[in-house]
Amino acid sequence: MIGFLGGTGPEGRGLALRFALAGEEVIIGSREATRAQEAARSVSTLAPGLRVKGATNREAAAASIVIVTVPYAGHRETLASLAHELSGKVVIDVVAPLAFSKGRARAIPVESGSVAQEAQALLPNSRIVSAFHNVSAEDLLEPAKVIDCDVVVCSDDKEAKAQVMALAETIKGVRAVDGDGLENSRYLEDLTALLLNINRIYKGHSMIKIVGI
Amino acid sequence: MIGFLGGTGPEGRGLALRFALAGEEVIIGSREATRAQEAARSVSTLAPGLRVKGATNREAAAASIVIVTVPYAGHRETLASLAHELSGKVVIDVVAPLAFSKGRARAIPVESGSVAQEAQALLPNSRIVSAFHNVSAEDLLEPAKVIDCDVVVCSDDKEAKAQVMALAETIKGVRAVDGDGLENSRYLEDLTALLLNINRIYKGHSMIKIVGI
Repeated sequence: MIGFLGGTGPEGRGLALRFALAGEEVIIGSREATRAQEAARSVSTLAPGLRVKGATNREAAAASIVIVTVPYAGHRETLASLAHELSGKVVIDVVAPLAFSKGRARAIPVESGSVAQEAQALLPNSRIVSAFHNVSAEDLLEPAKVIDCDVVVCSDDKEAKAQVMALAETIKGVRAVDGDGLENSRYLEDLTALLLNINRIYKGHSMIKIVGI
Repeated sequence: MIGFLGGTGPEGRGLALRFALAGEEVIIGSREATRAQEAARSVSTLAPGLRVKGATNREAAAASIVIVTVPYAGHRETLASLAHELSGKVVIDVVAPLAFSKGRARAIPVESGSVAQEAQALLPNSRIVSAFHNVSAEDLLEPAKVIDCDVVVCSDDKEAKAQVMALAETIKGVRAVDGDGLENSRYLEDLTALLLNINRIYKGHSMIKIVGI
C-alpha cells in the first residue's frame, strides 16, 4: 500500500495513478478527507480497475510506503505532526521549494540544505528518499502516455533507495538513476524551477534524461 | 575569433577544440602565456588544420566572443581585471561554483545568486551568457565523438543568447535550449555537482537532455 500526504494536487494524483496502474493499492491523503476522496474518484475514472481511495493524511501515513506531495509551505508542519506514524518507514519526498513571481519560478533557500534533508531532520526514524521532482504531472495524468524520462533518486539509506528506484521503474518509460545521498537532493529540487521556466518558453512538459552513463 | 579566459583545463580545451573544428579561430588564454601555448599545442594535435593559439588572458579577452573557463576561485579577480577589454562583448560564463570533499562535489553559495550573475555585476557593460556547464570535457576532447546532449543557455540579452545558442549547435550532436534569463543560471551551475557525483557512481560522463519540449 502506498499513501500520499497532500496527494490532491496534480503531482500526487499523477503518481497515484501510475502506481495504481502498476497494481499498487493507493491512498490519497489530504487534510480534508472529502477533498482526498474527490481526488481519488477523479484518478479512478482514468483507467479501469484501479484501487485508489481518499482519506486523511494520517490514514495515508499508515501505508507501508508514504509519498510526500504537499506544497513546500505545508512540508514542515505535515511531517512533524506525523512523525510517529512515519517512524521506520520509507518516506519519498517529492517536494520542491518554489516561489513564483511574474510567471517565473525560482527555488527558495532551505535551511537544512534541501527539502529532503529537512524531512530527514524532522523524521530521524524514517527512511527518507528524494525522487520524482522532475516528472511532468500532466504527463503522469495521461494513463497511456509513456514517461520517457529519468528519475534521479537520492537517499542515505541504500536499501530504501533501491526500493524506490524499482518503484520508479514501474512507471512505463521511466529509468531510475542513482543520485547518491540526500545531499544531492537540492540540485533536483531546485532544477524544478528551471524546468518550469523552460515550459513557459516552449509550452512543453519538460523533464530530464541523464545521458553518458 | 573566440578567446578563452583560463582555457588550459579540460573544459576550456574541449570547447576550444570543438569551436576550432567548426572553423573558428581560437585563442586559449591563461595567466601564463607559456601554459596557454602548451594547451593550444595539445589541442592542435587532436585534428588537422585547427587554428588554435595560446596567449595571456588579456590577449584572449581581445577576441570578439570570450568564454570564461577559470576555476571559480579565480572568477572574480579575472573578470574584474579585464572589465575594460570585455566591455560591449558577448562573454560566455561556463564556471560552476564547486567544492569537493571525500570525492563528492557540492555547489557552494554565490552571493550574487549565480556565477553568471556575479559576472554580470562585475562586467555591467558586457553581454553575459551562461552555457556549457553540463557538457563532458572528456567527450569534448574526443574530436570524433558526437555530443548527444542539450546545452541550456541563459542570458538577459536575447540577441547574445541567440548567438550563443547557434554557436552551441556547431558542436556536433548538441541541441541548444533556451533557459531564459541569467536568474536561471544557478540551476545549471549547481547541477554540475550532481552530474559529477553521478559520474562517480556510474563511471560515466553524464550530461543532460531536456525531454518533453
